Amino acid sequence: MRIVVLAGGIGGARFLRGLKAAVPQAEITAIGNTGDDIHLFGLKVCPDLDTVMYTLGGGINEEQGWGRADETWSVKEEMAAYGVGPQWFGLGDRDFATHIVRTQMIGAGYPLSAVTEALCQRWRPGVRLIPMSDDRVETHVLVDTEDGGRKAVHFQEYWVRLRAAVEARAIVPVGAEQAKPAPGVLEAVAAADVVLLPPSNPVVSVGTILAVPGIREAVAEADAPVVGLSPIVGDAPVRGMADKVLAAVGVETTAAAVAAHYGARGAGAGSGPGGAESGGAANASSGSGSASGLLDGWLVDTVDASVVGEVEARGIRCRAVPLMMTDIDTTAAMAREALALAEEVRR
Amino acid sequence: MRIVVLAGGIGGARFLRGLKAAVPQAEITAIGNTGDDIHLFGLKVCPDLDTVMYTLGGGINEEQGWGRADETWSVKEEMAAYGVGPQWFGLGDRDFATHIVRTQMIGAGYPLSAVTEALCQRWRPGVRLIPMSDDRVETHVLVDTEDGGRKAVHFQEYWVRLRAAVEARAIVPVGAEQAKPAPGVLEAVAAADVVLLPPSNPVVSVGTILAVPGIREAVAEADAPVVGLSPIVGDAPVRGMADKVLAAVGVETTAAAVAAHYGARGAGAGSGPGGAESGGAANASSGSGSASGLLDGWLVDTVDASVVGEVEARGIRCRAVPLMMTDIDTTAAMAREALALAEEVRR
Repeated sequence: MRIVVLAGGIGGARFLRGLKAAVPQAEITAIGNTGDDIHLFGLKVCPDLDTVMYTLGGGINEEQGWGRADETWSVKEEMAAYGVGPQWFGLGDRDFATHIVRTQMIGAGYPLSAVTEALCQRWRPGVRLIPMSDDRVETHVLVDTEDGGRKAVHFQEYWVRLRAAVEARAIVPVGAEQAKPAPGVLEAVAAADVVLLPPSNPVVSVGTILAVPGIREAVAEADAPVVGLSPIVGDAPVRGMADKVLAAVGVETTAAAVAAHYGARGAGAGSGPGGAESGGAANASSGSGSASGLLDGWLVDTVDASVVGEVEARGIRCRAVPLMMTDIDTTAAMAREALALAEEVRR
Repeated sequence: MRIVVLAGGIGGARFLRGLKAAVPQAEITAIGNTGDDIHLFGLKVCPDLDTVMYTLGGGINEEQGWGRADETWSVKEEMAAYGVGPQWFGLGDRDFATHIVRTQMIGAGYPLSAVTEALCQRWRPGVRLIPMSDDRVETHVLVDTEDGGRKAVHFQEYWVRLRAAVEARAIVPVGAEQAKPAPGVLEAVAAADVVLLPPSNPVVSVGTILAVPGIREAVAEADAPVVGLSPIVGDAPVRGMADKVLAAVGVETTAAAVAAHYGARGAGAGSGPGGAESGGAANASSGSGSASGLLDGWLVDTVDASVVGEVEARGIRCRAVPLMMTDIDTTAAMAREALALAEEVRR
């Protein structure tokens, strides 16, 4: 079985680990978000790709969900001593090594997809990890300035330095419109038996991947069933601060609203009537509006069982199952439910 | 008092530390060798500049004489795990930080001299440290190949990986002929009250600095007296493997031969009659032959007292004093002897 997963960082990585456990023989392609990539200290840092690589390769810091286990922090200490910033981004020494190797390879002319493949030769994540694009895409967040204006900050600055504590007025995946899918991305989607949207951030993770021209269309037109898992349980994101960026694109923080935001296959995508609270907000990263809907099926958590009917009324098959990725076993069970739902909706 | 020192790595750094202790009020300019700079992992590494900076700034690993105190090695471990080389060059995590900052600044367009000044704002070495040139100079060593030919290896590969265990056929400071002295180098020499050649390697450290067009001439024509300290005590280098590279330029491993190699001021430089065993060897890095002699005075160790007459016969004032840089006090005493000799020969 060939499975394609559009993966963000921590949520995507943990889901992939469960999926591998559920179907060890499957041929899994993870299409990784690179919109939160950032250049720090002259080095190219790819947080989501690395989180997937480290998580599946056994090198992740399990507690924090990102960064390396057994990490040391000498380089960061030295940067502070040199007065070189930013200091708010936590790069450990082992993590630095990855960025040094990546930057050196990119400097030598290799595209990011080839570099990622090379790094994966060490990590052996057990999935084929492809960045969504070899072109530079950088998610910016529009926030208010003190003098009443607006300014764009890099997503990482919004997320890590500002801790999403200021209102996001819009999410803009700069460069996405000019970006091309990396080699293998469209082919993998076209050849897939199942396409899964894991419980990653629907705006700044999955949304950014879908913003690369061609990817959303490929998913919408895939022969394979497309099933998503809600990143919202009850009224809150399972982890992270998805509510903040959902608000910026005018989507309520509910499992049903996110399903509507992705939209039903064969229909226009969400954020239409009934889907969003404030449809007027900027929605650059999801390509909604004229874009096609994506979902054949949608899993919500058991606490959200009451929305199943609402989601199904949109033409999306919906099931309520436990969606907390507490450990690999519970995550594998989620993956099995997603695959079962995919079989149910297979045309 | 304005003192200019042509500094190599460990020997130059330790001498500078003693000199600072001997004359704390002096205005010291260290002109640093950059011929052993090397690009590793896409980063610009300047071993000699860093050794001076770390030694005078209190960050050096005292035992090994290079690299940082309290060092960790996570990045290097990761590089090995990625299969990315070279592994023979010992870069610790704290050291990596210096190279990352430097590389980022150079990438932003700053010349090495400005970068070095910026790094020194942290280290406060108490001397003005200027690289010999902002242009790239890379010392290569010609060695024999197994099939009877010759090949050039980077000096660091010869020194660190091969441990100077193969014969050096020639020392070539690639790029030196096209290099210009960094801003401030010639001015510092011209304005100096004393110029000192510390007990650094006369070929690959001091010799490389002198190979940058204009520097040798500036020293030869300086108003200030020029005094050197022999890096050879008895028949061996005080430290390092200077004998290996002296042989490559046809100079005996004796305190007298090194003095002759530098040459007496007002006379042609060394490696002439009486100065060298094998004058036919390549001597690219010292610019000898038609170049001017440099020395007004020369200090040899007490064990070499017997050569004082031979050196003086060449027109170089010579004294035999203890030349082992055992600690800061003994090194400061050496510096005082050098300054005393400079006063003696001041014209």
